[in-house]
Amino acid sequence: MKKSETISALATPPGKSALAIIRLSGPEAFEIVSRSLMEKNLFKQAPARYVGLYTVVNVKNKDPVDLITAIKYAAPRSFTGENMVEIICHGGPRVVEEIAVALFSAGAKPAGRGAFSQRAYENGKIDLMRAEAIRGIIESTGDIDLACARKLYSKGLKNFSEWRTKLLELCKKVEADIEFEENVDEIEEKSIGKIEEFLKVIEKEIKKREKIKSVENFIPVIIAGPVNAGKSSLFNLLLGQNRNIVHSDPGTTRDLISERMWICGYQISLIDSAGIRDTNHEIEKEGIKRSRAEMEKAGIILWITDATEPLSDEEIKEIETVDRNKIICVINKTDLSHGNRKKEILENLKIETLAISIKENKNIGLLIEKTGLLIKAIHNSIEIPDLFLNQRHEEIGKILYNEMCCAKDSWKSPEIAAYHLRNGIQLLDEIFGKTDNEEVLNRIFSSFCIGK
Amino acid sequence: MKKSETISALATPPGKSALAIIRLSGPEAFEIVSRSLMEKNLFKQAPARYVGLYTVVNVKNKDPVDLITAIKYAAPRSFTGENMVEIICHGGPRVVEEIAVALFSAGAKPAGRGAFSQRAYENGKIDLMRAEAIRGIIESTGDIDLACARKLYSKGLKNFSEWRTKLLELCKKVEADIEFEENVDEIEEKSIGKIEEFLKVIEKEIKKREKIKSVENFIPVIIAGPVNAGKSSLFNLLLGQNRNIVHSDPGTTRDLISERMWICGYQISLIDSAGIRDTNHEIEKEGIKRSRAEMEKAGIILWITDATEPLSDEEIKEIETVDRNKIICVINKTDLSHGNRKKEILENLKIETLAISIKENKNIGLLIEKTGLLIKAIHNSIEIPDLFLNQRHEEIGKILYNEMCCAKDSWKSPEIAAYHLRNGIQLLDEIFGKTDNEEVLNRIFSSFCIGK
Repeated sequence: MKKSETISALATPPGKSALAIIRLSGPEAFEIVSRSLMEKNLFKQAPARYVGLYTVVNVKNKDPVDLITAIKYAAPRSFTGENMVEIICHGGPRVVEEIAVALFSAGAKPAGRGAFSQRAYENGKIDLMRAEAIRGIIESTGDIDLACARKLYSKGLKNFSEWRTKLLELCKKVEADIEFEENVDEIEEKSIGKIEEFLKVIEKEIKKREKIKSVENFIPVIIAGPVNAGKSSLFNLLLGQNRNIVHSDPGTTRDLISERMWICGYQISLIDSAGIRDTNHEIEKEGIKRSRAEMEKAGIILWITDATEPLSDEEIKEIETVDRNKIICVINKTDLSHGNRKKEILENLKIETLAISIKENKNIGLLIEKTGLLIKAIHNSIEIPDLFLNQRHEEIGKILYNEMCCAKDSWKSPEIAAYHLRNGIQLLDEIFGKTDNEEVLNRIFSSFCIGK
Repeated sequence: MKKSETISALATPPGKSALAIIRLSGPEAFEIVSRSLMEKNLFKQAPARYVGLYTVVNVKNKDPVDLITAIKYAAPRSFTGENMVEIICHGGPRVVEEIAVALFSAGAKPAGRGAFSQRAYENGKIDLMRAEAIRGIIESTGDIDLACARKLYSKGLKNFSEWRTKLLELCKKVEADIEFEENVDEIEEKSIGKIEEFLKVIEKEIKKREKIKSVENFIPVIIAGPVNAGKSSLFNLLLGQNRNIVHSDPGTTRDLISERMWICGYQISLIDSAGIRDTNHEIEKEGIKRSRAEMEKAGIILWITDATEPLSDEEIKEIETVDRNKIICVINKTDLSHGNRKKEILENLKIETLAISIKENKNIGLLIEKTGLLIKAIHNSIEIPDLFLNQRHEEIGKILYNEMCCAKDSWKSPEIAAYHLRNGIQLLDEIFGKTDNEEVLNRIFSSFCIGK
């Protein structure tokens, strides 16, 4: 899209709603909107950032299309740095379509994904990190990715600059050493500590990212246990609805069923799983296999067991494989039996237990509270990275890590080490967006929303 | 919802997008927003209808939530007639949620469906017809319902007043006649013509509505014909995509498949149907039954027939039952045979024909053009009613018609006639929205969007 063109797009989601926003940006933005309005002069004379009431008219028959409000933003004091108009219209799909037709007839061109952000970037209004941060804020569905996007927005540039400065200093040092042809061993001694330190920082960043990805915004809380212990009943009780088929035939839930919900202010993914038991039934076997795999990945396991049944060796075997810090053994059906023996054995195994009765709704609140504490602990253990705040950064970060390893490995050949350090600086610059590679930029911006 | 409360809601559709609008209305609107912002004083001092840039902060930890623009509308110069604020924020679901939480913590109450429009109505800013017109504009998906909503918006009040004046004059006349105890026959003679005239107008309005409902915004264009004549191929060709399974086994399409598309600037619903033939297969029989029912309802029938096959008696029987003005007989496979004999027979039956070849893409443009002409004729035959511009009006209109019939039937008992005429005026007032019946109002407004 040429810069001389004025682009336009719907900036709110498509659908029926009270209001919608249509955005325009480009040298002709004011003229195009004015051509589409009944009150042409009123709009032309309106000051910037003033909300005026106008009528969009059909280009052909001059019939009124919609009563709108429009705001002018004069270059360079706008998001894109160009002249911009925001039209707030009634949120009807047909209305929006007709206004778009009016604007296109008047000379606007449809804006591609991220076209507004790309212009803002090209006009030096935002850097790439800031643009990505806005995309992240828009697209985040959980607390953690939102926190990442916000950190990128507020601290991204500062952290980038610090890293770059460090790396540049290291690079200059190595290059100076080459220049003065000092003893190679001395160079090594002086600065290899710094590159090792830097490597550790990158490694830590990558680990933080991996931890974040492991919880995927929604900590997986799996309800597992032997067949017929009340897994699905607990699942439904926690969800507060009858989402699952609860049936007293053992082995009813064969597939993993999950729902997103909030517990104690945290978003979780609650998973119901197939009951674990010895079986020859192929489908059931597969279900159990999946349950085990999901237990492995889960942040928290609520192992529910029947107070009226003795603790089987099989059950103990399953529980013992699990990290003690992420399991609560929930002894259900205490309306029928106290289950004290079971509790004792489990506590000897250093496993936290809680006696409940789903039927009598006993200790459910306590279970939620205990689960909440575990979730909180997981959340508290998550650190928001300093620089690798999205997938793209992480990918570049991994290459950066390799370059730094190469630099370290070739520390005795300062020319080669300097080469890898320079590559590292270039990679950092790519995170920041110092790139003229149009393809890279187009790829990044095309992952944005239309109208952004 | 008490008027003293300040309400807030998302006014744009939920979803990920560049921007979103959150609306507030009520006496505390300015204070609540100011409490949620970092730049409290800047917002307080901002003039009305000026777009300012602010930061929404988290109520608890004062962390920035989003960079927004906000517009103040001071009462009574606002949509609702109350103090209003429009917040334009980044369109991320989590961001919108957090801003909503900030506003609710600061004292706003969630707005129910149509709550803003209801306040506008209660504050005398819009009448019920105008409110319904806006809803209609938002919800319209086709040209016709949009035209109805626009007519309601621009001419609803004028037409309502004219009808009401007529009815009131008639009513006063009858009442005056009662007063002066004139000869009943004379009363009848003088004014029964007027009530009959009025009845005709109502009847015409109801008919217009029925015609509109029959095309349902999308004129149904059905592709019908014997098995294996190329129905699905034509369907796909017109849609420009391979939506359907095209298979050379006769009887592949057993269910009706429809897609909305544009033809010559008109929106249609293109329907593929089951091929019609004698069969004992139960499912196929059911499909054929449905095809026939759909042909009955369709605005246009594209009867496609195979040039290489003779015209069967069965086919002639099917075609003859159909209104000649709404059918085009499309003779396909003219790449294999000229089909001239078929053309001749059909034209003798006064049925419009067109020889095409889907395989060679021959005359498809002509077919689209001919279909477009038929659609245009249907569109031109549609009249937008004067007063019954939505379902609610139509329902009231039908009761009004009954009351007027009763008035006419009891014309010799002027007291009774006057009673029915008075009822008629009340019904008209109900269309306009002169009603204190809270339940009626709540029902109407609760069909609006959230945020409207």
